[in-house]
Formats: sequence, C-alpha cells, structure tokens
Amino acid sequence: MVCSIDISEKPALNDPILIEGLPGIGFVANIAALHLIKVLKAKRFVQIFSSSFQDFAVTTDDGGARSPINELYYAKREDGGRDLIVWFGNTQALTTVGQYELVGKVFDIAQEFGCRFVISIGGFKKDEAQAVPGIYSTATDLETMQQALDLGTKVMVGHVFGIAGLSVGLARIRDMKGFSLLVDTPGMNPDVNAARYALMTLGKYLGLNVDLAGLEASGEDIKRMLESFGVVRSITEEKKKEEQQLRWFI
Amino acid sequence: MVCSIDISEKPALNDPILIEGLPGIGFVANIAALHLIKVLKAKRFVQIFSSSFQDFAVTTDDGGARSPINELYYAKREDGGRDLIVWFGNTQALTTVGQYELVGKVFDIAQEFGCRFVISIGGFKKDEAQAVPGIYSTATDLETMQQALDLGTKVMVGHVFGIAGLSVGLARIRDMKGFSLLVDTPGMNPDVNAARYALMTLGKYLGLNVDLAGLEASGEDIKRMLESFGVVRSITEEKKKEEQQLRWFI
Amino acid sequence: MVCSIDISEKPALNDPILIEGLPGIGFVANIAALHLIKVLKAKRFVQIFSSSFQDFAVTTDDGGARSPINELYYAKREDGGRDLIVWFGNTQALTTVGQYELVGKVFDIAQEFGCRFVISIGGFKKDEAQAVPGIYSTATDLETMQQALDLGTKVMVGHVFGIAGLSVGLARIRDMKGFSLLVDTPGMNPDVNAARYALMTLGKYLGLNVDLAGLEASGEDIKRMLESFGVVRSITEEKKKEEQQLRWFI
Amino acid sequence: MVCSIDISEKPALNDPILIEGLPGIGFVANIAALHLIKVLKAKRFVQIFSSSFQDFAVTTDDGGARSPINELYYAKREDGGRDLIVWFGNTQALTTVGQYELVGKVFDIAQEFGCRFVISIGGFKKDEAQAVPGIYSTATDLETMQQALDLGTKVMVGHVFGIAGLSVGLARIRDMKGFSLLVDTPGMNPDVNAARYALMTLGKYLGLNVDLAGLEASGEDIKRMLESFGVVRSITEEKKKEEQQLRWFI
Repeated sequence: MVCSIDISEKPALNDPILIEGLPGIGFVANIAALHLIKVLKAKRFVQIFSSSFQDFAVTTDDGGARSPINELYYAKREDGGRDLIVWFGNTQALTTVGQYELVGKVFDIAQEFGCRFVISIGGFKKDEAQAVPGIYSTATDLETMQQALDLGTKVMVGHVFGIAGLSVGLARIRDMKGFSLLVDTPGMNPDVNAARYALMTLGKYLGLNVDLAGLEASGEDIKRMLESFGVVRSITEEKKKEEQQLRWFI
Repeated sequence: MVCSIDISEKPALNDPILIEGLPGIGFVANIAALHLIKVLKAKRFVQIFSSSFQDFAVTTDDGGARSPINELYYAKREDGGRDLIVWFGNTQALTTVGQYELVGKVFDIAQEFGCRFVISIGGFKKDEAQAVPGIYSTATDLETMQQALDLGTKVMVGHVFGIAGLSVGLARIRDMKGFSLLVDTPGMNPDVNAARYALMTLGKYLGLNVDLAGLEASGEDIKRMLESFGVVRSITEEKKKEEQQLRWFI
Repeated sequence: MVCSIDISEKPALNDPILIEGLPGIGFVANIAALHLIKVLKAKRFVQIFSSSFQDFAVTTDDGGARSPINELYYAKREDGGRDLIVWFGNTQALTTVGQYELVGKVFDIAQEFGCRFVISIGGFKKDEAQAVPGIYSTATDLETMQQALDLGTKVMVGHVFGIAGLSVGLARIRDMKGFSLLVDTPGMNPDVNAARYALMTLGKYLGLNVDLAGLEASGEDIKRMLESFGVVRSITEEKKKEEQQLRWFI
Repeated sequence: MVCSIDISEKPALNDPILIEGLPGIGFVANIAALHLIKVLKAKRFVQIFSSSFQDFAVTTDDGGARSPINELYYAKREDGGRDLIVWFGNTQALTTVGQYELVGKVFDIAQEFGCRFVISIGGFKKDEAQAVPGIYSTATDLETMQQALDLGTKVMVGHVFGIAGLSVGLARIRDMKGFSLLVDTPGMNPDVNAARYALMTLGKYLGLNVDLAGLEASGEDIKRMLESFGVVRSITEEKKKEEQQLRWFI
C-alpha cells in the first residue's frame, strides 16, 4: 500500500491532543471534527492520500475534482491549554490493512509534533434516536478510563469497529494514552444532536467552551459532502462488515 | 504490488500534456488515444506492466502472445505547440491499490519528462446514444475548469470512477493541473461517435486539427482487441463495481 | 502488510522450544498455551501487531481497550530442561499472506533466541466429543515423527489448516524441527478436555509435570475472552474457509 | 507478498531452457514435468515458498508435513544439447499479484543461470477426451512461433490463463523467447495421454528422446499428490475463475 503524505507546515505545538473525526456511524465524529475546525479556526498542515481509499473523484458544484483524503489541522490555544490536532477526512480506508497503515501514519506524524494523547469520536448504534444520547468510553489504561468516566460517560461494552477502535487500541501499543467518545445514534444519517453531545463532553475534558451555534450548518456541510460521495447505504452494509470482521474465526 | 517499467527512449519534450486513454466506459478514451497515436505518428517510449493486471496472455491471429500492458507514446509538434504524451493500454488495474499505483507511476514518469498538465478522457453513461453527445468536465482548479467550459463542456456532476477520475484527483495533489472530458455514451460497445467528439474538443484545446478520417478504423482496431480480450460484459459488471466502491461506508 | 514488533526483554534461553497456542478449532491450543503461561509463570517479552489482524478494539469490563495481538512468553526451567517460548494471542491473521508473514516473523524472533524446535497445538474436528480424545501428529521429518508417535499420537491424515499447519510446514523449510499435536474435538466451543490431553502429551515430551488443577479456570478465561471478541460462528465458517483454500485449483 | 527462496546449488548450465510444469488444467504440465525430472534424473537446486500459496500443510502417509511449494530442477545433457531447468510444484499462487511475483522470481533465477528461453506446458479444455489430442501454441515472437508450428502445433486462439499464459507473456517483456504447448484435455483429472503428447512434442523440439515407459506411474504420483491436497473441484471453479479475470471490464 502507498500512503502519500504532504506536510505543508511544521507548527510548534504545546503537548497536543489528537482528535479523530473521520466518517463513521452517524457521522458523529465527522460533524464534530468539522465544527471544531471551524470554530477554532484550525489550520490544515497535513494531507494524506492512501491507495486504500476509493479510486474515484467526486465533483463539486463548480466542477472541481475532489479525491478521497484525510487531513490534519492544528489549533493553538491562547488560554494556555493543550493545543489540538484535528484529524478530518471524507473516508476511512477500504481494507483492514489500509486502516492499520492509516492510523500508523497519522500517529507517526502526530508523535512527530509531540502528541501523546488521542481522543477518538464515534457513533454507537441504537435502534432509536434519543434526546439525550448516552456516551460510552473505552481507554488505553485505567487512569485515563477514570478521566473519561468523570466526564459522565459509561463503560463501553463490546466491539469498537474501524478507526475509532483502532485509534485507542493502537495508542496503547505506541505508549500514547487516550479514550473514545461513542455517542448513541441511529447511525443512518448525519446526526447533529449526537455530535453536539460529543462536543460538549470533549469541551469539558479540554476545558474549552466550544461554540455550538453553527453546528446545524456543519451537519449540513457533512450531509452535502456525503451526498456528493453517494453515501446512502447503512444498516445492511454495517451488518455485512461485522460479519466479515469475524471471518477467520472457527 | 510490482510495477515493472521499461523506458526505451528519453525524448526531450516541450512542456508536454499527458492524454489518458485507457479502456473504460464506451471505450471512448481508448479509441481516441489509439487514433491520436496513429495520426500523430506518436512513438512508444515506455511500457508498464503491473502485477495488478490480469494474469493471462491473449493470442493474436498469428499466435503471438499479448499481455495486459500500459504504454506511453510521445508526439512532438512541429507547429510549436506543446508536445503530447499519450497513455494507451489494453487494461486498467484490477484493484483499487493497483489503480493508485498505476496512476502514481505514470505521473512519476510524465513529470520526469516535464509534464505538468493532464487531460483524462472517459465515457459518461447515458441510457441512449445521442447524435451530438454532451461532454462533461471536472478539473483540478477553477481556472482550468473555466478553460474546459470554454471548450463547450458542461460541469460534471457526480462520481468519476477509475483512472479518468483518479487522474484529475491525483493531479491536483501532485501540483499538476488538468481536466477530464467525459462524453455521453451508452457504454456497452466501443463508441466511435463519442470518441469523435472527445477528439474534436481535445483538438480545440490543443490548437491541433486532428484528422478524423480513419476514426472508424481505429474503432474497429479497439473492437478487435477487446474481443480478443473477451470483453463482453457491460452494465451489470459496472453496477457491481459502483457498489463495491462504497463498501466501507456505514 | 505491516507487522510491528515490540521486544521488551532479551532473555538468554537454553535451547528453547516454541509452543504455538493461537485460537483455532476447539480453542485447544489457546487454552493449553494460556494454562502453560500461568503454571510456568511465563513472562511476556514480545508483542506482535499485524495489519492483517482485525481492525477493531474490544473492551474489557472496566473499559480497557484490547486489540488483536500475538505475544511471546518465555519460561526458564530450573530442572535443567530446555526452556520454553509460548506463542499466545487472541487472533490468527485474516489473510493467507498475513498468516505466512506472521509465522515468518515469529520464527525470526524465536530463532534469534536460539530456538530450533516448534510444537504446534490444534484441534482436529470430530462430530462428537470423546472422553479420551485421539491425538494426531505431523512432523518436519521422520525422526521427529517417531518421537511424536512414541508419545502415543497417531499419524495425521489430511490437511492441517492455519497456523498449526503452517508452523510445521515452514519449520521444515527453515531448518527447524517440530511436530503438531492435533486433538479430537467437536470444535465449536472452548474444549477444556481436549486441552488437558494436549498438555499431558506435551508434558510427556518436555519431561515436565504440568499442574492441571486450574485448567477449567483457564478454559473460562479463554471463553470470556472469546465472548468479548464476539466469537460465535463455527462449523459453517470453517467449511467456507476450507473451500476458499482450494479456490485456485482447476 | 513474500517469496522466500532457497538456492542449494549453483550449477553451470549450458544455455538452459526453462520448462514450466505447475498444476493446471488436466495437470498436463505437472505430469510431464515430474516425468522429465525422473527420466532425466534432474536435480533440485531451488525451493520457492510464497505467502500467496495456501496456508496449510498436507500430511504424507508417514506423517511428514508437506507445504505448498515450487521447485526448480536442472538436467545437464551429455549429448551437447542445451541443458534444462524444470519448474515443478504442487501449486500456483492464489492471487493475481502472487502469480506475477512468482513468475518474476522464477525468471530472475533462471536468467541468473543463463536462461533465455521458456516453454510453458498446459491443458486446453475440450469437452471430450481425444485419442490424438491437438496441441496449440502461442509464442513471444513470430520466428519462435514458426518453430512451434514446425513441431505440428496449431495457432492458439483465445486466452491462456494462469502461469502457462503469464510465462510466455512476461518472457517477451524480459527479452526472453519462448512458446507454450497447450494440449487438448477434458481437464478434470490428471490426463496422462495429454502429457504424453506434450512430452513427445517437447522432445522433438529439444532433440531429446524422452522415455515414456513409466509415464502412467508419473500420472499416478501426481494423482496421489493431488488427492492428498484435496483437489477435487474442476469445471465450476474454473468457470468462476474465468469470470473473475474479467471483473474490471466495463
């Protein structure tokens, strides 16, 4: 596999926290990450292309060609808090091997900029939408897990598929710490409400008051992007994926 | 994956434009590229073999063995216009990873010869054939998009699958410019009429009067080559492919 | 594929024997290996992560994130016998290529620590459970095969799929010796009784009296781990796998 | 992918010809190659293992573990004729990429020993067995094709799948020459009669009188080996494979 990486700037960051926000169940992470980038005026400094992304281009309204891509943005905080690296994109990798490579490359870069902590955001599929969704966590270690529980999350039980799961699992292996925020969502459409709760919990951890005023607009942006990428399938695909994950087992 | 590349000559080219012409929907690009090679007496200087091509040989009438292959031809212009590199072949790669690698290799070589601009040709599937087919474009940037629109193309809406899409998407990433010419076609058989419109539009951009007299013969050549490769499937296969492209989505 | 390996300690080992104990049919090897680690107080010195493992994390009761992993433990013997390297894990690799790479990496490491002998454990699917299960062997060479037969095993007839088979087959190629212990099991659930017979036979070979008192508890540990990994499928999946194995044949 | 190669001897060979004899349709090549090895008392000097082979071991009657493997044997001729390298094995690679890699590695080795000519053997599926089967050829170039036709072969029309096709196709790319001998066969069982005609034609080309007395025994050896590898499927699998080969086409 080939990951090609373009680093356009080398900012000096203060003990930065990596926030994972790729598309996934309910697009909770994707909406939250885009909104963070907007309200924090985060600046893109890394572009990542992988041969495990889809082999097509998607057009924008004015004819621009848009490729599957992952990006890293940084936001420096003026209140002395830890800086942020936001991991945004319009795709995860298509294959298991590609997913491992992608997380590995992003962690390589993040660690190069001094990052030792990762927070992955995701959706946790529930049959029905909930006004106040539950938030579930898994963490690299018990101390970090306690920090997550102190934010009002519950213990996640079961599998965390895809990048949200890999990020926490691989962080532990690479001597990084971190936890996940998995928010209840029906999972089929971009879920702005779930993203709101993800951002409120994240803000509490970061000591950061995230302005949620324009969140609906961020949800609309993600929806438009997803529509242009033809994302329509949901539960059946997801089921199939879970089955594949277990295919080696006896 | 293994790409093996054989460069038989190193021509000095004048700011060359890369024209992508691999087999795809309606074989529009393939016919157009073969015809360009013929009328411009373009010379082959690169052969590319990939382990992501099919693992068979196809025989010619006299028993010769023909492998899946991609080739680059160059044509020097005597009117002072920019030289051309024509990317021709009898196959795309079988896998997503192979497609990315293939475009990457071809761009590496093209850039080595000074190329900074790519035009990808393709078909845009319509249910019925049209006497005057529409031509759609997507581009790396707005300025280039305007140049494409000035040729009489319309804004492409939707996905551009395969090499035609990757070429424009990846050009942008590699600081190259370019656009695509996607011509209406029913897509099941080699579509000489669509190739004619592609070449007329391309000629307008290049300031080059492409002799279209022998175009039917080029279409027949492609048809014979495709038949020898056993290409018979069309719409169902294409549909399946589109579905696969989206398989990671939730 | 990417195998990332973390070697935390470099013990000096006395002509060590590698014991393969990954999950497979009846989880015979997995239970036996875990039990060995416990009773011998074996110490983990190597962690192996592969991009051919599944791309998810599994949570523990207290919210810890657990990744698919392979591990090597060593046990030094005070009775002058040969030391042991126990190969434990919660997964095999998902793909054929990944399996080959995994065995190759583990053998590279084992050989680095002086290992020249491997014993792979596995289940041999029978329709019904048996109070005294048969044990079948295959070996790298006739002399080693005789040693296995002297333990009361029978000659294995047929295929040995997965890591248990690869380990013996690839050992031969790498100038290592070894044999497999494949124990009758219905194969659907963790089979403590089959693991007992595997350990008794292994103990006989090693001249090691393995305390089997806590074996039920080891079986429960494996069962809990497997449940957390969502392992529920059995015969149908296995059948499918066997069919895939033969897919290239004419 | 990983090919591991073990070269046990470096014989000085006289302009050797590579004879490809892997299992395929009717196992024509496999029987012919094994028989050549026997009657010429050819000596194994290379073993090749690929992670694209199947991940299992097969047991022999006495419990020995046998892995999927490819081997090269050499035979020096005392009559002053060109020496031979016989490419034998119990498997082709499972994937397209693996097939390309395998041919590439074998050609690398063969060329290292001075080889510039390859003859691939294969079966050409016919609905019914024929007492005197037809033999079809494809070649790297017209001159070599004429040599093949002079042996009484006909021009092959259509696809040559797998190693037999790749060998001739890739030979051309690597400045080697060669042709294929594809013999009519129903293709489901090891076809000794087809192998006989392959060897007679090959012998004519080599100016070598191949003793065909023990050919039935060689056929039985291959049959036993194939049975131990569980090879039972035939036409349906083959059909499926052909369909897969064309999956990228529009």
